[in-house]
Amino acid sequence: MLKNRLSTQELKDGVLASDKAVLGRAITLVESQSVKDRPNALSLVNEILPYSGNSFRMGITGAPGVGKSTFIDGFGDFLLSQGKKVAILAIDPSSKVSGGSILGDKTRMEKLVGKKDVFIRPSPAGFELGGVAQSTLESILLCEAAGYDFIIVETVGVGQSETAVKEMTDMLMFLTIAGAGDYLQGIKRGIMEMIDLVVINKSDQIDSQVLSKLIGNFNHALHLFPAREFRPTVEILNCSALNSVGFDQIWDFVIKYETHVKENGSFAENRNLQNLNWMSRSLLNMIQNHLQKNELLKSNIEKFESLVTSKSLSPLDAAKQIFDLLNLG
Amino acid sequence: MLKNRLSTQELKDGVLASDKAVLGRAITLVESQSVKDRPNALSLVNEILPYSGNSFRMGITGAPGVGKSTFIDGFGDFLLSQGKKVAILAIDPSSKVSGGSILGDKTRMEKLVGKKDVFIRPSPAGFELGGVAQSTLESILLCEAAGYDFIIVETVGVGQSETAVKEMTDMLMFLTIAGAGDYLQGIKRGIMEMIDLVVINKSDQIDSQVLSKLIGNFNHALHLFPAREFRPTVEILNCSALNSVGFDQIWDFVIKYETHVKENGSFAENRNLQNLNWMSRSLLNMIQNHLQKNELLKSNIEKFESLVTSKSLSPLDAAKQIFDLLNLG
Repeated sequence: MLKNRLSTQELKDGVLASDKAVLGRAITLVESQSVKDRPNALSLVNEILPYSGNSFRMGITGAPGVGKSTFIDGFGDFLLSQGKKVAILAIDPSSKVSGGSILGDKTRMEKLVGKKDVFIRPSPAGFELGGVAQSTLESILLCEAAGYDFIIVETVGVGQSETAVKEMTDMLMFLTIAGAGDYLQGIKRGIMEMIDLVVINKSDQIDSQVLSKLIGNFNHALHLFPAREFRPTVEILNCSALNSVGFDQIWDFVIKYETHVKENGSFAENRNLQNLNWMSRSLLNMIQNHLQKNELLKSNIEKFESLVTSKSLSPLDAAKQIFDLLNLG
Repeated sequence: MLKNRLSTQELKDGVLASDKAVLGRAITLVESQSVKDRPNALSLVNEILPYSGNSFRMGITGAPGVGKSTFIDGFGDFLLSQGKKVAILAIDPSSKVSGGSILGDKTRMEKLVGKKDVFIRPSPAGFELGGVAQSTLESILLCEAAGYDFIIVETVGVGQSETAVKEMTDMLMFLTIAGAGDYLQGIKRGIMEMIDLVVINKSDQIDSQVLSKLIGNFNHALHLFPAREFRPTVEILNCSALNSVGFDQIWDFVIKYETHVKENGSFAENRNLQNLNWMSRSLLNMIQNHLQKNELLKSNIEKFESLVTSKSLSPLDAAKQIFDLLNLG
């Protein structure tokens, strides 16, 4: 039975000892939207940072209904058989009002639930996308510090959440099925250029001609983009996640990809760019927290809000006047 | 032939005179991501603000393939026949790498293109969603100042871009077709609670039993949410946008909706909340611009970036040290 509140040191020790309950608590802390939790979260993440980074991070995206949960359940199990310790996180900015959650129904991952070397965490609810991105990256670092060396980040959405996932992973996989064509038409331009691997799921249910045509379409779409200088050519594989068919080819691709980007330095370069983005986001986050926390500033902002509400001041003039009050160096 | 560069005064005069070429230029200015354009953009928006606000703003969302362009073309034409001056804007955060654009292919709006009282503007490319939201709201204000009294903001996506559109419009419509079921399953929780009207397009191609079942499904989904206190009950209408069938019922709903929210004050309340959000976003925007523009700060940030890159400093510590340098009031 865990205490109600753990200190940063206790959280750090538990995470490094790969204690799942403590890891869960640590993630809850970095997900907290309470301004007073933020300094503790930052100090925890900073403490575990030297122990993080040692994983391969794979993003998975695809429309609802293509079988992402089933895929992750089966492929995760395959990864365990390869000796990996697997953490599964999710980004889902789709529900703002009531808060949404993917991986919420963990019972759908029958093969993985309860296994020792697996950690599953549903997506945080009720966040702005920026907040989700920030806390998910920090959750990845915590999982790495806890010894998870294969991190899967699941997302659903068109464009924006893929961008967030792309910015915190090493490789982005797009899962699809036959018949998702109309949907694909709309999104391919935006995400095609971000993805590293296409996997057609439920391929055992598709006529081979249809499958060939689908692969042809993807190849066509992919060739509209310039050749990738530092990453391997995108491949189009297929699988039946439900029947655990095709995972070995996907695994081969992952190995090939990882070797390629590590050898040419783009793995490290990519992680460095991600770190710089993280730095910028953290800075903005600190500034936002400061605006909410500082009492004098807060009462000033409330004063300006009243002026905007009574239409005595335009929102832009109010923003400008608050900005001037900040007296930035 | 317009000059290469117009002054803020010239832009303002042109916008107020409803000169479409100048309006286009003004929107280009507010969409500019160049730090040096921002002060001019802010001053222009502030200048036209007193002339803005006098419109009904309708957001339209729906998956790719449901016929949004055809709908907007037909319904826009219907609005013209009701004496409206119609502006059509788009938000599409789906492509970050190469920049995406919906409404990009204006030739798809055959009924509207070239008409006097219509202004069509494709979505800005290559933005973060926050930037899109900021510039699209400012574009709405410019269109209003130019006399457009019915603004349509189109978006595509799951969740996050709808949230952005919701935060700048008075009413959100969801366009769908039969057969988009799987897709709907995944998104309905997130956006169902935001939408005010569901329209089933291509209803003349659907068997009446299928249509009834679809309407039933929507009704079921909608009833999972608490009754709306200040907005009319969500309705589920159908149309054939291609054949201009069903627009009158949609129009009736819009009128009913507008009357309802104006009478109970929630229209004004909603716009006020939107203004306060806009104020906050503008403030953050000003801070971000300051970080990029201030030479001393910039060179400091670059110094910290080098330290992060060489792994001498953690991204979080770097952010903290830059934050301290800002010496916020």
